[in-house]
Amino acid sequence: MQLEELFVSPHQDLDGHISALIQAFHEMDDSLQPYDRSDFTHRLADSAMPDGQMALTDYLHRLQQLLPGISHLASPRYMGHMTAPLPAYTGELSRLLAMLNQNPMKMESSRLLSFLERESLARLHRLVFSRGPDFYEHFMHAKDAALGVMTSGGTIANVTALWLARNHACGDNLFALAEQGWRGIAILGSRLMHYSFDKGMDLLGAGAASVRRLPVDEHNRLSLPALEAELRHCQEQKIKVIALIGVAGTTDFGSIDPLPEMAAIARREGIHFHVDAAWGGPTAFSSRYRALLAGMELADTVTLDGHKQLLVPLGTGMLLCREPDLMMAVKREAPYAIRASSFDQGRFTLEGTRPANALYLDAAFHLIGEQGYARLIEENYDRARLMASLIEADPAFELMAAPVMNLLAYRCIPPHLQGKPRDESANIQINAFNIALQKRQRAEGHSFVSRTQRAVSRYGEQPLTLLRAVQLNPGIRREHIEALLDEQKQLGQLVARELFS
Amino acid sequence: MQLEELFVSPHQDLDGHISALIQAFHEMDDSLQPYDRSDFTHRLADSAMPDGQMALTDYLHRLQQLLPGISHLASPRYMGHMTAPLPAYTGELSRLLAMLNQNPMKMESSRLLSFLERESLARLHRLVFSRGPDFYEHFMHAKDAALGVMTSGGTIANVTALWLARNHACGDNLFALAEQGWRGIAILGSRLMHYSFDKGMDLLGAGAASVRRLPVDEHNRLSLPALEAELRHCQEQKIKVIALIGVAGTTDFGSIDPLPEMAAIARREGIHFHVDAAWGGPTAFSSRYRALLAGMELADTVTLDGHKQLLVPLGTGMLLCREPDLMMAVKREAPYAIRASSFDQGRFTLEGTRPANALYLDAAFHLIGEQGYARLIEENYDRARLMASLIEADPAFELMAAPVMNLLAYRCIPPHLQGKPRDESANIQINAFNIALQKRQRAEGHSFVSRTQRAVSRYGEQPLTLLRAVQLNPGIRREHIEALLDEQKQLGQLVARELFS
Repeated sequence: MQLEELFVSPHQDLDGHISALIQAFHEMDDSLQPYDRSDFTHRLADSAMPDGQMALTDYLHRLQQLLPGISHLASPRYMGHMTAPLPAYTGELSRLLAMLNQNPMKMESSRLLSFLERESLARLHRLVFSRGPDFYEHFMHAKDAALGVMTSGGTIANVTALWLARNHACGDNLFALAEQGWRGIAILGSRLMHYSFDKGMDLLGAGAASVRRLPVDEHNRLSLPALEAELRHCQEQKIKVIALIGVAGTTDFGSIDPLPEMAAIARREGIHFHVDAAWGGPTAFSSRYRALLAGMELADTVTLDGHKQLLVPLGTGMLLCREPDLMMAVKREAPYAIRASSFDQGRFTLEGTRPANALYLDAAFHLIGEQGYARLIEENYDRARLMASLIEADPAFELMAAPVMNLLAYRCIPPHLQGKPRDESANIQINAFNIALQKRQRAEGHSFVSRTQRAVSRYGEQPLTLLRAVQLNPGIRREHIEALLDEQKQLGQLVARELFS
Repeated sequence: MQLEELFVSPHQDLDGHISALIQAFHEMDDSLQPYDRSDFTHRLADSAMPDGQMALTDYLHRLQQLLPGISHLASPRYMGHMTAPLPAYTGELSRLLAMLNQNPMKMESSRLLSFLERESLARLHRLVFSRGPDFYEHFMHAKDAALGVMTSGGTIANVTALWLARNHACGDNLFALAEQGWRGIAILGSRLMHYSFDKGMDLLGAGAASVRRLPVDEHNRLSLPALEAELRHCQEQKIKVIALIGVAGTTDFGSIDPLPEMAAIARREGIHFHVDAAWGGPTAFSSRYRALLAGMELADTVTLDGHKQLLVPLGTGMLLCREPDLMMAVKREAPYAIRASSFDQGRFTLEGTRPANALYLDAAFHLIGEQGYARLIEENYDRARLMASLIEADPAFELMAAPVMNLLAYRCIPPHLQGKPRDESANIQINAFNIALQKRQRAEGHSFVSRTQRAVSRYGEQPLTLLRAVQLNPGIRREHIEALLDEQKQLGQLVARELFS
């Protein structure tokens, strides 16, 4: 093929082949190609740059060979990831977005889409903070105002929140802070805070001890007495607390911290209050479940992730700011790109050039919308409760946390420990059993849940291996949940024989 | 439309409509819809969340109305952005990638694509560092090794480099450093360093003065005497220099810092050497121009941007590490996601969940490849030289920096100053003229270059407004360049009358 043709030719067969690959993806599970690292590494071990003479049909053949080796998260028996199959229109929208190649870092390189981004952020701001229409009319497109920023994901959104909080609290120079007698900076939250906060505080130059992971109550919510004690402790130690972190949907349990109480403490102490609602934020669409998020509207900043429950492609995070002038704490300019006098969103974003993913949000808002999201969310939350009831009814399982949203933590119990009391030594056996079982199930590839390691209050501080199911795929039916649990029971027999006999 | 249909229906007409939108994009320029901010803000000012009952055909109508308002960077008379029209297969590949929804943060959620990412990074590592095949065989898929990481763009790649450099030099706790008597940390580079380094050092808690922007020589390359002087200055002030920054392709001029000399100084001083090759890196594909990058292979870390000269969609940055163990300085784990014993790339990336954009690189490597990139790059660099010669031959223009790569800095001279000597007061007039002219040209919308503000050595330190042309679109022909310059001359007559009479 001529190089020119790559740019102009419509490649008439290509769309049909790609459609076939997508169709196949929706019908596959991982059992086709076992999870075998040495096989994977052997197949993809060419460090030489190709000369570029491969025909498109041969490259399609390469794709066809790669595809069975990927994760088949569209299978309704896959309940382990926080990513789901996307609405069918997404593929076509992605095609448009890729070819338009707009860069919303600055108005000049995306024009109208810059404003679409601000409009989409305003819609989410209103969902979260419920300010009046006048507020949005005034600030949505105002010059030195930002209701939020788009980020590549929840991690960069959380990092941006810490950046804002620190600069707002004490500027960008920690040596100057040290000269004033401060011995460090810290953030306070529960031990279930996402690990992006560790990355963030590491980046910020605050050291590992700056992330104060505090105990949780029996419902996996930050302990308020522990928070008050740690605030006093930091004060005594001359540690400046730059933010309190509330989690609305922990990654392990889906639990929600006591947001109203945390907001009150943050206000009393004059500390930035950030809520990580990457997982739980869209719960606000549901009138049935919205009350779970009470207090989120009191946060200074809120992280959302479009590519989780908002059902848009990966790479679509957001940080929302309650007050439109907060972003001035990190505002930047550059002579060739971002002018101080401009309206460019690039003045506020940590990232520079980036894709115009707001278009995915705009499409989802119009095509799925408030009513559609409410229904999808409520059905997912119902499914989690159904799965919990199946688990509770069966001595082969133990429910480790009742579902608050659509995340479920449980574990499998080996036959010889079913119906028995579980002391520390039993838990050690159960941990080994669940690790082996999860790996075995993953290798077989018919169904999937992920695993984590956490303490659960009724067993004290002992680290426990937990299985983690995520109800996000709208195609999951009761029979898929039953099939997954059945497979675990069957594999459990095999695994127990290998481990304990 | 039923909610369920959004997930399962193939939307038979949708692909045709999207193809028509893409086709229209390729044929439009901005003259259809003037650059009118108040019009844009009026059209997109709805903060209410839609209920979600919009039919797909109505949403297509919304897209059709939005499209003329975007930036028409595919026009061959658009030479102002660092983004170009992409090869035609990109759209279909994007459709596949969006629908597969793979997350290469961890192996479990992307499986084979994790290894494809490592393979793609190895190919680029080899292009940049030219290590032997054994090196790649050993490290490409090794456990505690990373030849690089994918990022959402050059900014996060540069930030990651600073993070690595600081942690490697002095850990992640600046208060501990202050206690040891250090009064600050700094990076040293030319004043043409990208503004992502300011963001990065701000994030790192180092304060604004930590980015030491040093003078350049008459070819816009970092002045080595200035570098040596600043190193001594930092030592005297007890400022720890964590990195030297070399730029391979400045955003304003495309100039390349003296990389071999900087590498030698960095080695002598034991300082991390980072090269920002976001723009210039792919020059390595061309045997004709590769020598420009001499010394890049001595860097500890190198930033590349897939979405610039590698011609893949936005959101595809990379940081390459010469030594595979460097990334251990920022390694992270999380109990539910990233296990210490794993091979997960998420142990090293600043970002968490992110799209599997390595697939775009893999496709471009096979379909465009070394030979194709070499030809595209050489043709672009030739076009820049052609444009420079047209500018030099015409008294209505002044070439402000001879093109090193495919970036061109020049300015328009108003009629009354053509052929005259240009002192400080003439330059003030010429600045105002070029600002007005660039805005006028952007508003007319038939052709486009961007503008920047920089000093140019023959005029001392006076800030000058420069026009900046980027030769990246392979569809640009001589007649498009001539048309752009002709339009500037014609608009220049009008603008000069408004400004100077």
